[in-house]
Amino acid sequence: MPCQTAEDQQTIERLIASRASGYSLPGEFYSNEAVYRAELDRIWRCGWLFVGHTCEIPRPGDYLTFSVDADSLIVVRDDDGGINALWNVCRHRGTRITTESQGRAGRLVCPYHQWTYGRDGSLVSCRGMQEDIDKSELGLRHAECRQVAGLIFVSLSDNPPDFDAAAECLAPLVTPQGLERAKVAKIVDYDVAADWKIVWENNRECYHCNVNHPQYIKANFDHYNADDTSERVQARISDAVERSEEKWAAAGLAVSHRRTGMTDFPSSGPTGWFAANRTPLVEGFKSETLDGRQAAPLMGDYSDADVGTLRIRTLPNMWNHSSCDHAVSTRLLPAGQGRTAIRVTWLVDEHAVEGQDYQLADLMPFWQLTSEQDWQLCEQVQLGVRSSRYVPGPFSTYKEYNVDAFVRWYLEQLGKDSRR
Amino acid sequence: MPCQTAEDQQTIERLIASRASGYSLPGEFYSNEAVYRAELDRIWRCGWLFVGHTCEIPRPGDYLTFSVDADSLIVVRDDDGGINALWNVCRHRGTRITTESQGRAGRLVCPYHQWTYGRDGSLVSCRGMQEDIDKSELGLRHAECRQVAGLIFVSLSDNPPDFDAAAECLAPLVTPQGLERAKVAKIVDYDVAADWKIVWENNRECYHCNVNHPQYIKANFDHYNADDTSERVQARISDAVERSEEKWAAAGLAVSHRRTGMTDFPSSGPTGWFAANRTPLVEGFKSETLDGRQAAPLMGDYSDADVGTLRIRTLPNMWNHSSCDHAVSTRLLPAGQGRTAIRVTWLVDEHAVEGQDYQLADLMPFWQLTSEQDWQLCEQVQLGVRSSRYVPGPFSTYKEYNVDAFVRWYLEQLGKDSRR
Amino acid sequence: MPCQTAEDQQTIERLIASRASGYSLPGEFYSNEAVYRAELDRIWRCGWLFVGHTCEIPRPGDYLTFSVDADSLIVVRDDDGGINALWNVCRHRGTRITTESQGRAGRLVCPYHQWTYGRDGSLVSCRGMQEDIDKSELGLRHAECRQVAGLIFVSLSDNPPDFDAAAECLAPLVTPQGLERAKVAKIVDYDVAADWKIVWENNRECYHCNVNHPQYIKANFDHYNADDTSERVQARISDAVERSEEKWAAAGLAVSHRRTGMTDFPSSGPTGWFAANRTPLVEGFKSETLDGRQAAPLMGDYSDADVGTLRIRTLPNMWNHSSCDHAVSTRLLPAGQGRTAIRVTWLVDEHAVEGQDYQLADLMPFWQLTSEQDWQLCEQVQLGVRSSRYVPGPFSTYKEYNVDAFVRWYLEQLGKDSRR
Repeated sequence: MPCQTAEDQQTIERLIASRASGYSLPGEFYSNEAVYRAELDRIWRCGWLFVGHTCEIPRPGDYLTFSVDADSLIVVRDDDGGINALWNVCRHRGTRITTESQGRAGRLVCPYHQWTYGRDGSLVSCRGMQEDIDKSELGLRHAECRQVAGLIFVSLSDNPPDFDAAAECLAPLVTPQGLERAKVAKIVDYDVAADWKIVWENNRECYHCNVNHPQYIKANFDHYNADDTSERVQARISDAVERSEEKWAAAGLAVSHRRTGMTDFPSSGPTGWFAANRTPLVEGFKSETLDGRQAAPLMGDYSDADVGTLRIRTLPNMWNHSSCDHAVSTRLLPAGQGRTAIRVTWLVDEHAVEGQDYQLADLMPFWQLTSEQDWQLCEQVQLGVRSSRYVPGPFSTYKEYNVDAFVRWYLEQLGKDSRR
Repeated sequence: MPCQTAEDQQTIERLIASRASGYSLPGEFYSNEAVYRAELDRIWRCGWLFVGHTCEIPRPGDYLTFSVDADSLIVVRDDDGGINALWNVCRHRGTRITTESQGRAGRLVCPYHQWTYGRDGSLVSCRGMQEDIDKSELGLRHAECRQVAGLIFVSLSDNPPDFDAAAECLAPLVTPQGLERAKVAKIVDYDVAADWKIVWENNRECYHCNVNHPQYIKANFDHYNADDTSERVQARISDAVERSEEKWAAAGLAVSHRRTGMTDFPSSGPTGWFAANRTPLVEGFKSETLDGRQAAPLMGDYSDADVGTLRIRTLPNMWNHSSCDHAVSTRLLPAGQGRTAIRVTWLVDEHAVEGQDYQLADLMPFWQLTSEQDWQLCEQVQLGVRSSRYVPGPFSTYKEYNVDAFVRWYLEQLGKDSRR
Repeated sequence: MPCQTAEDQQTIERLIASRASGYSLPGEFYSNEAVYRAELDRIWRCGWLFVGHTCEIPRPGDYLTFSVDADSLIVVRDDDGGINALWNVCRHRGTRITTESQGRAGRLVCPYHQWTYGRDGSLVSCRGMQEDIDKSELGLRHAECRQVAGLIFVSLSDNPPDFDAAAECLAPLVTPQGLERAKVAKIVDYDVAADWKIVWENNRECYHCNVNHPQYIKANFDHYNADDTSERVQARISDAVERSEEKWAAAGLAVSHRRTGMTDFPSSGPTGWFAANRTPLVEGFKSETLDGRQAAPLMGDYSDADVGTLRIRTLPNMWNHSSCDHAVSTRLLPAGQGRTAIRVTWLVDEHAVEGQDYQLADLMPFWQLTSEQDWQLCEQVQLGVRSSRYVPGPFSTYKEYNVDAFVRWYLEQLGKDSRR
């Protein structure tokens, strides 16, 4: 991957300048190779990426891998219980050490010449090399790795942005969900033929929900906005909030979104990459399931099913909706221009037993349907914005304020010249 | 799709200058990305493209779509019977409005946020948008659309070339075929791994017919040229022409090709993009079918099967062979460098009933075999001209005069600098 | 394929300068398009390519084809028994004349317009062309073609390097194997997702053998090196060499490798592209088969099974291991960046009858397993070296001296500026 050239940088600057406020992005942002390379450099290899859950790798040696374009990393539980993120590239001749998406390893052994690394990445042995090799300089490269409330984040940057503020914000809100005491019920991987920005733009508004998400809108109020919320609906929302506030305050949970529409995210400014809030569900819904019924044992600290949904988002690549009984994380990773690898993970309490305490057929459809409905829309957007006659259109100020905020965040990141 | 750069323009000019008259095109014309981009700009987004037949969309709301590289358009019958060509790109966030190849729609509704357009492209509603949106400025973009004798043409250019001359030329020749009173018997779509120019170069000579098209040459005289037409054959051709002239004159049909070999096309000059003529078939052939027998009811104004073949060609993307009983249109569209999407459409009289008045097994093989024989040859040419040691070879002056004429037309179009 | 630009040349020079001696190649050598183009120009279209065996095309008109990236050539046995290498590109309009991988042809007839070429490439007829065509100038282009001891080599260059030195070196060593009196037992083609250099780097060391090639190391001593060869093993090797030397000298065969480890190849300098040597097998192994038993009749001049293995290598694209009873040739050809087309060919004596004199199930597994083990490793290296954080690592001076020699040879070839 060549570094950014001056020509690339000019292209980026020209494109950033060409965007009109309040309008969707010009088409080249979805098709220009220089843009994709700059995004890898300035967003994907800079910020904090959600990569998985601590409960996916509970024991020392458990690992999972993830890929950002051509880069692969191993996230492995160390002997002391810590988690290391290691570049999946042997220091000898560059072999990808493992091609598995998850597994367990005593040590990380390169299949080629059996260079052997500890779970901390240190080079333990390299039989066959000359005696003057300095093993201490040939460990697997580390990436920064942090965790909060059961969520694992990795930054591919040598100078990652501040994580503490995120941890401080997210920990109190997420901890009650008990993601650290959870287990994976199901993982589904999607290869979506759409740019990752299109996927986010889709996620950041519920303007499209009424027609496209019949399941989702039964359980949620998000699709109501200032322009189309009747007094009766507003009263229902206020009731739900009031009722929840009292109850949740007693349970140590905070309700943090009281208005119609989606909560603002991202906030402006370079540090606004994370957010979480708790939102009441529609009357009669205990969980984001098709019929609103609880589908698995209560998770975490919950003693009552009436906890609404906890919602977490982190840019550039994660959102999570958690109900009383299950949590659903969506992870995006760029897989070449115009392609996004999306993983949706369903989590339940660690003690819940499939077939006994829960059925996947009850647990999965709500978010599986909603997700797949979205991926199809995203692919149709990708086709359209590549047209030579596509021009940016206006965002709805009622309903797409968060899409606009996402675009502003994106352009701010992209505008940072990181030529090396 | 970036605009042409100065460097691209220099490449184009260098390549045009490198072509020797009477020889096939240098190899880079088939592999250089700058050439492909220039072709899209200066040919495919400039000229008149054949897109389909009026009988494919008989009722208001009937539509078909077509794609030129990454551009998709909708061709839809309006309430007043007119036909509109609309860019298949929502004015909101660019979604491809429909991914169907044909259908019927009351209104054109974007699946994403239900922006709703009339059949004339006007934005009828965009629920959820702020009140100060000017809907009159947010209709679907129109492309120029014209029709003649049942054939629909669209130009992606804001300043398309003159169409009236084409209409005046084609109307009297094509109208008797009754394409407006026809129906589709079958459509077959092909994805051919060959540049569109190779497909035209194949179409513009019958030098390859003797061995490759055993079916075609039984019915036609095209493969006879000045160098290999015996006196006996010339006498047969003259007889056929003479006989036809008399009869067709009486029926109001004109025979317009009397010589051996294929009729000249394109004529030189920038407006020479269309042509039609009527040619006698070989004695005993009433129709371009395997056995020469009429395979469906007479079409259009014909009262007698002996009408030879009507042949229509329009650059850059259509030819049609019509017999007394059926018509076959071939449509080319570029689908990425070195790939051509080809659609072959068989038409019969609108009242003909499959299984009763005609069998596809009688109707299709003649042109299906001939077409598929050609696509295979074209793919083999594509492989060869990408070789580093391919050099242009000489055209046969007896048999490839039309290939040379096509190449000259092509270079003239490509030479127009349309940098913006 | 455009010529090298000045920018490309600068990239190549920068990359060559960036390589540290004794370390693996920087990552761009495996992903930069300019590098791939330069390799085609300066290596694949310059040197001598192994293309097949004389016994594959025994009779006049027998031919095989091979491809180097987009270039295809026909290697055909002429009427006088000589072998011609002809560019598989019709001189008329560039059609690939044959898409078969092998066959037999009276004459080479282009399927498009039946231009007909003799087995020597001369244009014999081009019916339909004007009378003033000079057929003598329109024969198929020749590539240089040479053979030695049953191996056919072709150079795509107009000024190929010296071949005589190779013939003089290889003939005495290879002739006893009787490849000219052999027949193909089996050909297996592989499409490997790894750069051809990765495949060579894999081939040039046995550091990876212990764990990855359980079959191979049972029969061979290659994986023993100065650092890990016990006195007992060294004694075994010396015994085997001593025993072989006496016996082989009597049989007119020379043992030419006496040390532990692999024989040096390539030697430094621009002519060091070929080598052959004979090496004893492990005690008890008569042939490179799973159990060491002879699996087919003795080949060539051999009168005793105890001939060790004859090993041949030629850069950039062949190695061969020959046992007393069979020979296995591996041929590499570049098939786009990061892809290598690999053909493995098993040969036996021309009179051997499958099912009677030999079983493929006995003959093939040794090299089929070893090969496929290697291709998998190579693909895993390709994945790793594309990582943005891959950095070259140190070669083992004990075990990877030949990888380093290969890299030096490669850089020397690549450094030759062949801008035209």
